[in-house]
Amino acid sequence: MKVAGRPMRTIWPGDDGRSVWIIDQTRLPHRFETRRLGSAADAAQAIRQMWVRGAPLIGVAAAYGLWLQALHDPSDSALAAARAELFATRPTAVDLRFALDSVCEALRGEPPSSRAERARAEADRLAEENVAACRAIGAHGAPLLEAIHARSGLPVQVLTHCNAGWLATVDWGTALAPIYAAHERGVPLHVWVDETRPRNQGASLTAWELLEQGIPHTVVADNAGGHLMQRGRVELVLVGSDRTTARGDVCNKIGTLEKALAAREYGVPFHVALPASTIDWTIEDGTRIPIEERSGDELRRVAGRREDGELVTVEILPAGSAVANPAFDVTPARLVSGLVTERGRCAASREGLLSLYPERRRGS
Amino acid sequence: MKVAGRPMRTIWPGDDGRSVWIIDQTRLPHRFETRRLGSAADAAQAIRQMWVRGAPLIGVAAAYGLWLQALHDPSDSALAAARAELFATRPTAVDLRFALDSVCEALRGEPPSSRAERARAEADRLAEENVAACRAIGAHGAPLLEAIHARSGLPVQVLTHCNAGWLATVDWGTALAPIYAAHERGVPLHVWVDETRPRNQGASLTAWELLEQGIPHTVVADNAGGHLMQRGRVELVLVGSDRTTARGDVCNKIGTLEKALAAREYGVPFHVALPASTIDWTIEDGTRIPIEERSGDELRRVAGRREDGELVTVEILPAGSAVANPAFDVTPARLVSGLVTERGRCAASREGLLSLYPERRRGS
Repeated sequence: MKVAGRPMRTIWPGDDGRSVWIIDQTRLPHRFETRRLGSAADAAQAIRQMWVRGAPLIGVAAAYGLWLQALHDPSDSALAAARAELFATRPTAVDLRFALDSVCEALRGEPPSSRAERARAEADRLAEENVAACRAIGAHGAPLLEAIHARSGLPVQVLTHCNAGWLATVDWGTALAPIYAAHERGVPLHVWVDETRPRNQGASLTAWELLEQGIPHTVVADNAGGHLMQRGRVELVLVGSDRTTARGDVCNKIGTLEKALAAREYGVPFHVALPASTIDWTIEDGTRIPIEERSGDELRRVAGRREDGELVTVEILPAGSAVANPAFDVTPARLVSGLVTERGRCAASREGLLSLYPERRRGS
Repeated sequence: MKVAGRPMRTIWPGDDGRSVWIIDQTRLPHRFETRRLGSAADAAQAIRQMWVRGAPLIGVAAAYGLWLQALHDPSDSALAAARAELFATRPTAVDLRFALDSVCEALRGEPPSSRAERARAEADRLAEENVAACRAIGAHGAPLLEAIHARSGLPVQVLTHCNAGWLATVDWGTALAPIYAAHERGVPLHVWVDETRPRNQGASLTAWELLEQGIPHTVVADNAGGHLMQRGRVELVLVGSDRTTARGDVCNKIGTLEKALAAREYGVPFHVALPASTIDWTIEDGTRIPIEERSGDELRRVAGRREDGELVTVEILPAGSAVANPAFDVTPARLVSGLVTERGRCAASREGLLSLYPERRRGS
């Protein structure tokens, strides 16, 4: 997508052949800054510090992390240690495991001397695969918006939670991909952007993305979604997924569940966009997914731009109060109107997913 | 309630006989500061700037504002102008109109020379009435917590949204009054405190209140409520009401509706505590209540304490993004398990309310 009118991706190999570059997403929307990662430890730090975030981008960043490790020390033990360090950064994201497994699988039987080259090729492949998947999600999802516009003749009112835009992937995004695709096709639309506490990914990232692509949008507090739906001001909810179970339960950013409940109450279609890499075929019941409990500091402290332009962090809580910070919640499949994947749209059900991924019928 | 162990109210007449004092709630939880109001314009500013907030406290502050006006100029025209200025500050709160009407009614037929004294007496009466009502709400609501504890033998898990504590009233609070009463009776409990974006009244005020009274609590992002309820970690939701319709629809802080939807989904009792002054007997359908749209700056800017102790405000949004900020939403009566008023508990229905306020059966 575009930054200041120039096409960009969220992650790209450096010209020196020994590094990968990322956008430091913790500085957005106030500063656009890039960072060079030179080792697996750098990649792990980038994920842990959330310089990169979003399930698909985390996976690709981790894959490049293994490449950087193989450049330094391609031994089995060094790669295993790097894999463990990278995997430990974000336990909920199934893409992370998928990407690490893909690289490790590619390296199986490879002599140490050619491992770096092989890992790089695999990381590149995962990145391109993600771009293609997101582009396809956009193509398959855009008709949802086109159909609403065809009925009303008015700008389509979409609500999204968190950031499942291009910043969460390598390019295009998942939940935002259908919005970008519909926008490119000339469908008038307006996006309600949930702030997405506690990390404000909606306010900081989704709003910034939409602004850079010139798409009309309005930021609202997470609390406003139910009200907007009750008043008929939302026609479609589109969110991403960090992990989708084999029956279509969706583990996504904390707060997604409340949007789904409000959408059902007020008859608003609730669609989830995801690449197959987020599907965990080993789990049926989403409430069995362990939920990452993140630091309370994410809630205690808010980073922003002071009037003089300086970026500062302020405390907003009484020092003595306890904080809980579950990062994800699980939306049961029965609240999901449909899934949008790189292979098309389907019902949020075991049969729906298997209709798009029939190869999973055996051995799953 | 207590501040640093010392009993306090949120509003009290000054010793000079020409002023009223308040706590500047916009400085909490970082600073405890009081302000002197010397005129109706000061009182209007205090409400507008949200130095005082909470429907009951707004009403009492406005009543004292009319007293301050009567001290300066007790003419009909001056009082009418002050009334209009005070009424315009917060159009959603029905208590505001109720309190202003009460003082104006008390002044009817009163000669200008005795109006100040009469207005002061009426404002004092409204304040005492509010304290008594809140204390009664606490007494009527505490059995909800006692019953849960009697069943489980464990600390009662209560979730509350926004601040309907003593800071929102003159003393005791509405939603928090049953919690304070149960705590005084020795019922072990733990309160999940919604942050309550965009003004953070939960994080700033409710958490501070509970901390000062020594009540265990945990602050969570507004997004976490549905998840906590899904996982069985909430046994009771208790919120306040800015305006309650004759059939029990509840207009309260934005986000209340989403908590009510989640509570119904997961079988969690959802109770609303309110003094009768918030009941608008003229409206049945809550969705007809005009919803105050507040400044987008409330969402754009976050105030907090920097590491060095300085209170600063930071911007968290891209400058070019639009913001919407509806301040309230409407929870339909069918989602409300029960109402707790100063006269007891009742169903959230026309019949329920009339059973407690039978004098409204005629002429309503």
